[in-house]
Amino acid sequence: MTIQQHRALESLQSLLRGRSLSELREQVEPKHHELAAKIPSGSEISVERITARWNVLSAAAASRAELLDERTEMQAPLYARNVENFIGTVKVPVGVIGPVRVNGTHAQGDYYVPLATTEATLVASYGRGANLLSAVGGCSAATINEGVARSPAFAFNTLYDAGQFVAWVLSALPQITEIVESTSRYTRLKDTRVSLNGNHVYLIFDFHTGDAAGQNMVTIATHAICSFIARESPVRPSYAFLEANHSGDKKASAQSFIFGRGRSVTAEVAIPRELVQKVLHTTPEMMARYFTMSAIGGVLSGTIGVQGHFANGLAAIYLACGQDVACVAESAVGVTRLEVNDAGALYATVSLPNLTVGTVGGGTALPSQRACLDVLGLAGTGNANAFAEVCAAVVLGGELSIVGALVANEFASAHERLARGEAKVTGSSAEGERA
Amino acid sequence: MTIQQHRALESLQSLLRGRSLSELREQVEPKHHELAAKIPSGSEISVERITARWNVLSAAAASRAELLDERTEMQAPLYARNVENFIGTVKVPVGVIGPVRVNGTHAQGDYYVPLATTEATLVASYGRGANLLSAVGGCSAATINEGVARSPAFAFNTLYDAGQFVAWVLSALPQITEIVESTSRYTRLKDTRVSLNGNHVYLIFDFHTGDAAGQNMVTIATHAICSFIARESPVRPSYAFLEANHSGDKKASAQSFIFGRGRSVTAEVAIPRELVQKVLHTTPEMMARYFTMSAIGGVLSGTIGVQGHFANGLAAIYLACGQDVACVAESAVGVTRLEVNDAGALYATVSLPNLTVGTVGGGTALPSQRACLDVLGLAGTGNANAFAEVCAAVVLGGELSIVGALVANEFASAHERLARGEAKVTGSSAEGERA
Amino acid sequence: MTIQQHRALESLQSLLRGRSLSELREQVEPKHHELAAKIPSGSEISVERITARWNVLSAAAASRAELLDERTEMQAPLYARNVENFIGTVKVPVGVIGPVRVNGTHAQGDYYVPLATTEATLVASYGRGANLLSAVGGCSAATINEGVARSPAFAFNTLYDAGQFVAWVLSALPQITEIVESTSRYTRLKDTRVSLNGNHVYLIFDFHTGDAAGQNMVTIATHAICSFIARESPVRPSYAFLEANHSGDKKASAQSFIFGRGRSVTAEVAIPRELVQKVLHTTPEMMARYFTMSAIGGVLSGTIGVQGHFANGLAAIYLACGQDVACVAESAVGVTRLEVNDAGALYATVSLPNLTVGTVGGGTALPSQRACLDVLGLAGTGNANAFAEVCAAVVLGGELSIVGALVANEFASAHERLARGEAKVTGSSAEGERA
Amino acid sequence: MTIQQHRALESLQSLLRGRSLSELREQVEPKHHELAAKIPSGSEISVERITARWNVLSAAAASRAELLDERTEMQAPLYARNVENFIGTVKVPVGVIGPVRVNGTHAQGDYYVPLATTEATLVASYGRGANLLSAVGGCSAATINEGVARSPAFAFNTLYDAGQFVAWVLSALPQITEIVESTSRYTRLKDTRVSLNGNHVYLIFDFHTGDAAGQNMVTIATHAICSFIARESPVRPSYAFLEANHSGDKKASAQSFIFGRGRSVTAEVAIPRELVQKVLHTTPEMMARYFTMSAIGGVLSGTIGVQGHFANGLAAIYLACGQDVACVAESAVGVTRLEVNDAGALYATVSLPNLTVGTVGGGTALPSQRACLDVLGLAGTGNANAFAEVCAAVVLGGELSIVGALVANEFASAHERLARGEAKVTGSSAEGERA
Repeated sequence: MTIQQHRALESLQSLLRGRSLSELREQVEPKHHELAAKIPSGSEISVERITARWNVLSAAAASRAELLDERTEMQAPLYARNVENFIGTVKVPVGVIGPVRVNGTHAQGDYYVPLATTEATLVASYGRGANLLSAVGGCSAATINEGVARSPAFAFNTLYDAGQFVAWVLSALPQITEIVESTSRYTRLKDTRVSLNGNHVYLIFDFHTGDAAGQNMVTIATHAICSFIARESPVRPSYAFLEANHSGDKKASAQSFIFGRGRSVTAEVAIPRELVQKVLHTTPEMMARYFTMSAIGGVLSGTIGVQGHFANGLAAIYLACGQDVACVAESAVGVTRLEVNDAGALYATVSLPNLTVGTVGGGTALPSQRACLDVLGLAGTGNANAFAEVCAAVVLGGELSIVGALVANEFASAHERLARGEAKVTGSSAEGERA
Repeated sequence: MTIQQHRALESLQSLLRGRSLSELREQVEPKHHELAAKIPSGSEISVERITARWNVLSAAAASRAELLDERTEMQAPLYARNVENFIGTVKVPVGVIGPVRVNGTHAQGDYYVPLATTEATLVASYGRGANLLSAVGGCSAATINEGVARSPAFAFNTLYDAGQFVAWVLSALPQITEIVESTSRYTRLKDTRVSLNGNHVYLIFDFHTGDAAGQNMVTIATHAICSFIARESPVRPSYAFLEANHSGDKKASAQSFIFGRGRSVTAEVAIPRELVQKVLHTTPEMMARYFTMSAIGGVLSGTIGVQGHFANGLAAIYLACGQDVACVAESAVGVTRLEVNDAGALYATVSLPNLTVGTVGGGTALPSQRACLDVLGLAGTGNANAFAEVCAAVVLGGELSIVGALVANEFASAHERLARGEAKVTGSSAEGERA
Repeated sequence: MTIQQHRALESLQSLLRGRSLSELREQVEPKHHELAAKIPSGSEISVERITARWNVLSAAAASRAELLDERTEMQAPLYARNVENFIGTVKVPVGVIGPVRVNGTHAQGDYYVPLATTEATLVASYGRGANLLSAVGGCSAATINEGVARSPAFAFNTLYDAGQFVAWVLSALPQITEIVESTSRYTRLKDTRVSLNGNHVYLIFDFHTGDAAGQNMVTIATHAICSFIARESPVRPSYAFLEANHSGDKKASAQSFIFGRGRSVTAEVAIPRELVQKVLHTTPEMMARYFTMSAIGGVLSGTIGVQGHFANGLAAIYLACGQDVACVAESAVGVTRLEVNDAGALYATVSLPNLTVGTVGGGTALPSQRACLDVLGLAGTGNANAFAEVCAAVVLGGELSIVGALVANEFASAHERLARGEAKVTGSSAEGERA
Repeated sequence: MTIQQHRALESLQSLLRGRSLSELREQVEPKHHELAAKIPSGSEISVERITARWNVLSAAAASRAELLDERTEMQAPLYARNVENFIGTVKVPVGVIGPVRVNGTHAQGDYYVPLATTEATLVASYGRGANLLSAVGGCSAATINEGVARSPAFAFNTLYDAGQFVAWVLSALPQITEIVESTSRYTRLKDTRVSLNGNHVYLIFDFHTGDAAGQNMVTIATHAICSFIARESPVRPSYAFLEANHSGDKKASAQSFIFGRGRSVTAEVAIPRELVQKVLHTTPEMMARYFTMSAIGGVLSGTIGVQGHFANGLAAIYLACGQDVACVAESAVGVTRLEVNDAGALYATVSLPNLTVGTVGGGTALPSQRACLDVLGLAGTGNANAFAEVCAAVVLGGELSIVGALVANEFASAHERLARGEAKVTGSSAEGERA
């Protein structure tokens, strides 16, 4: 969070906005006058509790009708295991695209994909991309890795003690594996990594979590492991933590980019030259040039991986389908590559190493989220890898569509029309673009 | 997306699942049988268009009631400028926390913060954190930078031509500044950076966008700049793109982490030892130890910045308040620091350089999103910096709460109860935790 | 420093090598028996002091003749300002390549470049690259930025105090600029950046250091600034440090990659197809394909920038010409790009943002280092930017040569001959390659 | 390589230096007048060849005496397998420090460490650090991983073909392992990783290379693997490269930081409070505060790992002891951590995952380099891991010494004296510092 000299002066003026420094001081210091009324807290959902909260929020009474509409009120109890301090629901518009044909190692067929977003042109652009994939017989996709990491950490007095601990943990892996299996029918320990830093040890456990995204399952399994360690370890840590930020949870990290976290999928498609010209209004060569310039642009800006806008498509599917949208922070990492192949066609591929998705658990059973999974045809057990492959397919189409719009200089048009109040965006034209 | 030898073999087995390689080949290859019916596309919202789409989705007819409920159907036209291919809304449960007292350069007072999430314990944990801040008179916060970047790119034959182009652009900045101002009442060019890579030039324009998040505004302004350049530049680029991935848009990047993108906010609080013990059930010293271990954990996993779970709080506020949730990918980057200060209290600070938020535009005017902004008291013009400071406050409280739970070994408990079907999570206890 | 489970077990065996854990413990614990004799320390160089040291090193008496040869003994006093605890010199073989023609904004003409290395085939490969550049009339090069950063840090009680401090520093920049100029005839303050993290402030001062690499000059200037701040600041820091690791000194960093540190140079060349075929035994298209595959390879391995082996050429020039070789850690960062241009030629460019080089100061005046600078024709004042451009030219040639060898599958041959004891490496063949 | 607007204008002025744009153009364009005489190239070392080169360099005749001194001329043939185009040697002054006591898993005892550098105060500062370690009975050190990576890459038409190739490679690992062993008595394949990116496959082979740094050995082994693949693979790649930049060779990379490359060592020491006060003139608490501020400083500047100045010590040992100094670019990455331990002492640890060092091969057999290894007592087979542990010990001491100087505000003093021509630097005082 570095500020240039000239910007710093400007920011300072903007901070002060005519206030003196001592007035500013007064504003930023803690204040001990009486606090506004507290929100009654808890996970229980009842008319009384909800009403009690809205009473506190009396100043925003008009909002109640929008958040606590009749249907929401009726279905309120269904949310009890997904939220606390419940006051209603926020409604996010859903557009549907497709069919997108996916020829995957798990996903097979033509999918209609619901996308929830408030950002105009997103659905149109992804829709254009999906249609392009389907027009050539669909994209190929493969799930090449699975596993969710948790990283407890243990502090010792000396490097020797740390080493002795590691030696014991390695010898106890068979027991640890059993303990993990006792925590859930679906949680399995796949792999263990050791990260040693002087007298500190981080253990990175990698779990299989069935068809769930599994973040809670791995927390519970790791808790069981840590209890076992506390009981049985011949060398006692000075202190230990269930998770010490070495797992990549909820953030872009080089480690997860390299090892994968969640499901790792790669997808590809080849688009004949004529179709590139007809649908994207440009040539494979110009698409490849854009790729080079934007890949180097990504490198120059210091991203993890290089890609265009994975976050847009992933956030929209995650939101529609009851995934944890906070995980977009870690999932929106990967690599896009565009080339002209030997046949003169446009070859395009995306790799997404960190798809933290599931088709059971989390928000997947909530009424409207479950409805979206049903639209997609991938609700419930047995579908998580297929869901991940559909995510990759949608992202691949989205990359093609936005790059096409940028290359054909059609990227800004839709936004300009929106700004002028002309809300016409058609998926069949190249205008359906945004970043 | 690297796979270890032993994992690769396992993945291969999992891919094949009893299939032969040639069966697998058949599955992943493009298929040219007839495609399922296409979704009628477009941004127009009418009963006919919506019905036409649901007719295509006939297999999922039961879902219609959940997505296209009565109220959604009635309000459907309100979504016309935010989505295409509309079929309904997804409902995300909202919990409210607070009041959180913020003593900011822009935010002043006690805020009730709506959080939309499907992840249990998130609201309870952030609520505990918010209460902790308020118990000590609130946190301090400062908005120290503003600006949204776009990065058009221009290719030339030679380095010399590229340099001549840069010289001309620098001389034309006064005109470019005027052009930008002509595109909107609110868009202002703040700064220009030049990134030169042989015969390729990336211009990184940094804009002020008023109270909007501004991603569309800067696209439109950059389009106008590019048109001006195309008309007036004495040296013609071989090709040029409105955006070439050097802006950090929708992704974690070192550049945005260092320069800021959107609004840059830092917040702090000091918690007396007794309160740490009473609320977090631990000591400032143990919190500081966790900080060191987790900061190094973050470094060891190769994150940009080091923090705990900014993504959780940001995704929940963004979603409730009509922000672009895809931007969580770039916003969930920053630094958390915990220390014992000279008074023996716990000092905590967070820095969030990339808050791409606004209180006008995007999804902020949609019915339930606007209702959430009203609950917060920050709807409309004049409020974007205050909104950013509230985001930072919530994130600061969330970091304290989760670290407290990890240190006091209470992190896994709530998850375990949930797993056992005991959905009791109370904000007043330390159990309200998740990662 | 993560170890896989299976590797960890193996490492453990390797650590133990038949020892029991308690034997191992005994070995790694501190030991308090009497220490071997201490090396007499100091920077004074005299026969007595040198002899006293060799007396301590009596076990290695035979080494003395190699390190303290007659000429070294004679010239010993010349090293007094460059080393302490002097015992002799290490001799590194120097090969010379060229002429390499550089058409730079500062370097102009045909340069013979001395390269010091112990790694076979390095000189041959860089020589081949240099000849290739010269064969097409030389490469173009431009120095586009200069500046060396130092980053003192200041801790305060609160964010407000930190902000007040920043406001004062910004207002005191004219005085600070004068203070800097008083520390040396050549040091100039170019720019100041502020990095704020709660109650911690890092100031990043960027200095112009004339023709010196300037690391000492900026330390001295920053010391003067810190003394001024200690004397004059209206708000007292709790503690402050002259440098707190925010300057990028001696390490690869995203910040220096983005902002530059030292001299920033970009260079380019276009090689006609026939010459690519004749000298590199491949085509521009295959070179471009390698570029894509290796750029993505770099991204997948998480490097800062993407390039091939900048470190090889830079270390060899730095070492020959009295530069600080530790700075290779920060200088060996940048971007290589290879493309087929519209004329069907191979276009190649390198960007090196962090060339921390000088032609005065450091080791540049030592006898053999000065001799190398004389071979190059760039000793003394007025030559530092030209020297930086020659570095970029050499690096550009080296990238072309190694990529050519990899593409033509000639990379391993020279190494294999070396392994078989056939030490024939000829610069005119493609064999002169190593990584 | 981004330039700020105001800097860009300044850089432009500096580039032009009074020249018009067309004069500048003329200077940077290729020039086709006759080239200066070419350096006779080749690896053969004979009086004739050397003389022929110096004849070309006639303008720098005076330099010959310094580079081609009598002893160098006499020993010239010894350099034939380490350099091409030989013209002499550059002499780098060597200072010796120690004894540093190392209690390692491989290094055991008191070591005198030769450091070659031209940077004043470096040896004194590392000497102070070494003495500090020895004063407490030495540091502990452990080699926890070994392995050098090479990454050939293979391009296919489709993801399916790529997958089929991977399946075959995995099945052929036993043969590949044998092939590797046939290339050298010492090269062993330890591990294989697969990185899949659409239709591109990178194989990352990790080798054990005995006591050699092994970069050439792994090239030769990988060449043999690639030949085997070319002969035997049932699916033919469109093209393939022996190395495609996914190995981390000669550059800082997240991958090597996480997985290790070369030898991975961690070292630690605890310094009692009194000794911190006596030698470093400060307290453990202030050292810990510096650690926090500088660790965050490193994070804020976007480094891989966080450390102070590993590069200084590593470059000096590498250079003295015949290591490949270009590898400093990859080796100078890691983590330093300073804390106050439960006994109130200063705990310090360093982790260096990428020590690409060896005690045989490379430059280790050259006369003066071998002499330095003899001073160290670690020449020849059986010593590489011990050498790596000594590197870590030296680096640990160096981190303590420089941090001590920064905290005690003694960092700039020695530099200032040097600037004033007072070349007195004594290892026993805290002045012996530089960055």
